[in-house]
Amino acid sequence: MNILIIGGAGFLGQKLAHQLAQRGQLRGQSIARLILADIQPPTVPKAPFPVASIACDIANPADVAQAMPADVDVIFLLAAIVSAHAEQDFDAGLAINLMGVLNVLQQARALARCPVVVFTSSIAAYGGEVPDPIFDHSFLNPQTSYGTQKAMGELLINDFSRKGFVDGRGLRLPTITVRPGAPNRAASGFMSGIFREPLAGVPANCPVAPDYRHYYLSPRKCVENLVKGAELPSEALGQNRCMMMPGRDWSIAQMIAAMTAVAGPKPAQLISWQPQPEVQAIVGGWRHDIRPQKALALGLEADDSFEDNIRHYLADDAPQP
Amino acid sequence: MNILIIGGAGFLGQKLAHQLAQRGQLRGQSIARLILADIQPPTVPKAPFPVASIACDIANPADVAQAMPADVDVIFLLAAIVSAHAEQDFDAGLAINLMGVLNVLQQARALARCPVVVFTSSIAAYGGEVPDPIFDHSFLNPQTSYGTQKAMGELLINDFSRKGFVDGRGLRLPTITVRPGAPNRAASGFMSGIFREPLAGVPANCPVAPDYRHYYLSPRKCVENLVKGAELPSEALGQNRCMMMPGRDWSIAQMIAAMTAVAGPKPAQLISWQPQPEVQAIVGGWRHDIRPQKALALGLEADDSFEDNIRHYLADDAPQP
Repeated sequence: MNILIIGGAGFLGQKLAHQLAQRGQLRGQSIARLILADIQPPTVPKAPFPVASIACDIANPADVAQAMPADVDVIFLLAAIVSAHAEQDFDAGLAINLMGVLNVLQQARALARCPVVVFTSSIAAYGGEVPDPIFDHSFLNPQTSYGTQKAMGELLINDFSRKGFVDGRGLRLPTITVRPGAPNRAASGFMSGIFREPLAGVPANCPVAPDYRHYYLSPRKCVENLVKGAELPSEALGQNRCMMMPGRDWSIAQMIAAMTAVAGPKPAQLISWQPQPEVQAIVGGWRHDIRPQKALALGLEADDSFEDNIRHYLADDAPQP
Repeated sequence: MNILIIGGAGFLGQKLAHQLAQRGQLRGQSIARLILADIQPPTVPKAPFPVASIACDIANPADVAQAMPADVDVIFLLAAIVSAHAEQDFDAGLAINLMGVLNVLQQARALARCPVVVFTSSIAAYGGEVPDPIFDHSFLNPQTSYGTQKAMGELLINDFSRKGFVDGRGLRLPTITVRPGAPNRAASGFMSGIFREPLAGVPANCPVAPDYRHYYLSPRKCVENLVKGAELPSEALGQNRCMMMPGRDWSIAQMIAAMTAVAGPKPAQLISWQPQPEVQAIVGGWRHDIRPQKALALGLEADDSFEDNIRHYLADDAPQP
């Protein structure tokens, strides 16, 4: 079992690498080798198998060819230009989120074997004038370039799989919170920042109103679901191999109340409420009333409560005082 | 009003060119110039305005730049590798139906003005395990490479329009019948051939059963709808600028009965019924129970009966005996 994580330097890629190191196996086989690829060579976790780290710009087919060994069994394709970045730099979004995905799939197709490819799509693929609730058969009507490129990636995953070139599966990620580390250029950044920073005693701004609702999942559950996504049998996936990953629908106010229930009243007092129209323009089109029936039936899971998200963050990621 | 038809040598491109020559105006303005572009230079119709013909491979950005003048107001983007061809030659499908569309949109974006772009998508964008009937908000779950590439083109049309780069509109064409001329490589070819050839006294084979149902439109109505699509005001299009073009749901048996009603019993006797599994594998995934509410509300139209399709063909296209 040889595994490649593309986007292995990102926080999900790193968590996934640690999870694989702990498990030691995937799809019932011992892991022989793990390769982490990203635009900069990723940090390598301690593991009971060799782990390689390689620089790879997926917009460059030669880089992809170099990062992908002929004997790869499972590819996690996590690399992306995130939402606000893709909105600001349209061509970079196309180069990474569309052409990069195509480059990875074409290289995988060229291998003698048919590798499993786990592709992270996004809740941002939903949007526009599609009626609530969102079901598995709701139209993907993205209202951002990021969501558009993710929806196109899903179509490629499905078609390359239908042709037998790869054994693809795509999971539309909810907004992942509480995300550790420094802010990135995702428009959803504040959805982690208003918890992460105050829990460390640092002020943070919330650019939307307390009644803003969205759909969330903890990093811990997300990584578990990515592993389950890799382990699903091909024949369980049907005629659309992409689906919403389960999450939970919360308002900002509910999430702050959960933080207060777990960590006391002080963190919430560090949140300011300056509206940011450019953030609202992106996240205002995102959805929250979502019924991920297919993924739930296949055994993927959401958190039980947002208190759990906060507890997972404090246990897994919060800097120790 | 300067117009470019990309795919101007195809039968729809030629019919559209003749229609524009007859009208002399579009979107309330006199047509000053028409350019027909295709892989081979298209035939030029007689018109009350200058008509140019140019060779253009849309997979080649330099060709697209040469074909698209800086003062173009309306672009009809009809060029495509058709269904069976895209299924057989996966890379040609990607090159023309995905990268070609991207090349056209990038060139249009580079212009100082924001041209109207009318993109022909396809009923083949529907498919798979999506429940009937198909509404405007049904998931696009194509089961062919052609349908996949058309669905990706729709996403690009929407995103380039949302960004203000073009004023795009996409129309998912029903199967167009009765199509004149020689057979092409579309899996739907027989859906014209079993009428066109027998009406000329030539035998034809039907590779599916008489109860096979699908969704059809005559070339005449299709061209009228393309012109209407170009004339729709941008603000009427909402958050998804792509929609199903209206058609009618008929069985093969109903269509043959209509031919018999118009042209007598002899043509139907020239139809043989040899099943073709490779054709069935493609067209078996296509849909027929479709409710194109958005397009109907915007004034686009279907034929009144399949007898009309036959009559339109005999009046507009059938070779004179």
